[in-house]
Amino acid sequence: MTRAEEIERHQPVRGPRVKKGLVIVNTGDGKGKTTAAMGVLFRAWGRDMRVVMLQFIKHTTARFGEQRAAKKIGVDILAYGDGFTWRSKDMDRTQEMARIQWNVAKEKIASGLYDVVILDEFTYPMHYGWIPVAEVLEVLKARNPDLHVIITGRSAPPELVEYADLVTEMRAIKHPYQEGIKAQPGIEF
Amino acid sequence: MTRAEEIERHQPVRGPRVKKGLVIVNTGDGKGKTTAAMGVLFRAWGRDMRVVMLQFIKHTTARFGEQRAAKKIGVDILAYGDGFTWRSKDMDRTQEMARIQWNVAKEKIASGLYDVVILDEFTYPMHYGWIPVAEVLEVLKARNPDLHVIITGRSAPPELVEYADLVTEMRAIKHPYQEGIKAQPGIEF
Repeated sequence: MTRAEEIERHQPVRGPRVKKGLVIVNTGDGKGKTTAAMGVLFRAWGRDMRVVMLQFIKHTTARFGEQRAAKKIGVDILAYGDGFTWRSKDMDRTQEMARIQWNVAKEKIASGLYDVVILDEFTYPMHYGWIPVAEVLEVLKARNPDLHVIITGRSAPPELVEYADLVTEMRAIKHPYQEGIKAQPGIEF
Repeated sequence: MTRAEEIERHQPVRGPRVKKGLVIVNTGDGKGKTTAAMGVLFRAWGRDMRVVMLQFIKHTTARFGEQRAAKKIGVDILAYGDGFTWRSKDMDRTQEMARIQWNVAKEKIASGLYDVVILDEFTYPMHYGWIPVAEVLEVLKARNPDLHVIITGRSAPPELVEYADLVTEMRAIKHPYQEGIKAQPGIEF
């Protein structure tokens, strides 16, 4: 028996056990939201599942460790954003890019070409009201029931948390920036 | 400027910024501890860093998605354990296996062959007193200062948290087992 089977076996269960695509939300202020989604991408690829990651907000030209790694294994990570921060000047452009990326996401979700679709940093466009949560929920509800969708980012909207199957909050207990240590390539990006 | 650079730039900083190997702890009762470590493995590999993962507790024969994926990219994930749970009968054996695996870990850490060493589920042997936390801290302090070490598992010992650079608690907000949904291959293992 594998550990996962063992865990499963010992879980308190209400109702029948079903296999289904999960909606997974990684939220909170701590590290590990995108990183854990990347771990799922890698793990699912290990089982020959079809995975795509769409990154919101992050720079279209980002070449972090994850983009490099995904390229090496032939999984698509599609970034479309302008690196929005609270210092952004052209908010119309930032919002427009998020909406365009959401249109791409909808196509990917409806395409039937994937087992796992990851929407990285997608909570922000919802949180800031650029994309209506109600519309996102409609798309999630209409998806192929076997499709897993993973959404990451801080400030996950309550309606999304309510609908999701698995929600984890990453909470920062201790962070090296506080000690003046740089973000380390390969580890944090 | 990349997002990570941007984040870095805007962090409040005390003292000089240094590049150094981090001790990272992913703890808490929620999902994503091992998964995020796997994401770092993948990301670091994307930057051609040398990575190894040692899994404690988990069955030596485990063939989860992560093992399959790591094998495909030529990264070693070495599991040595008997799948310990609170139902385990032979606790001497379980403890002995953890100590043997810790000896392997010490060799890997001292070898100079890696940029990142991941000790998965390693909090348990410390938490249960099979391996003294003081000894672990000694090994961590004596390591090459550029080496990153990632430790995952629930109940991280306070002394380890105190010493670590980056500590994240994964907190379960919602879990599908509660709804009777099975652990999904490729997603959770």
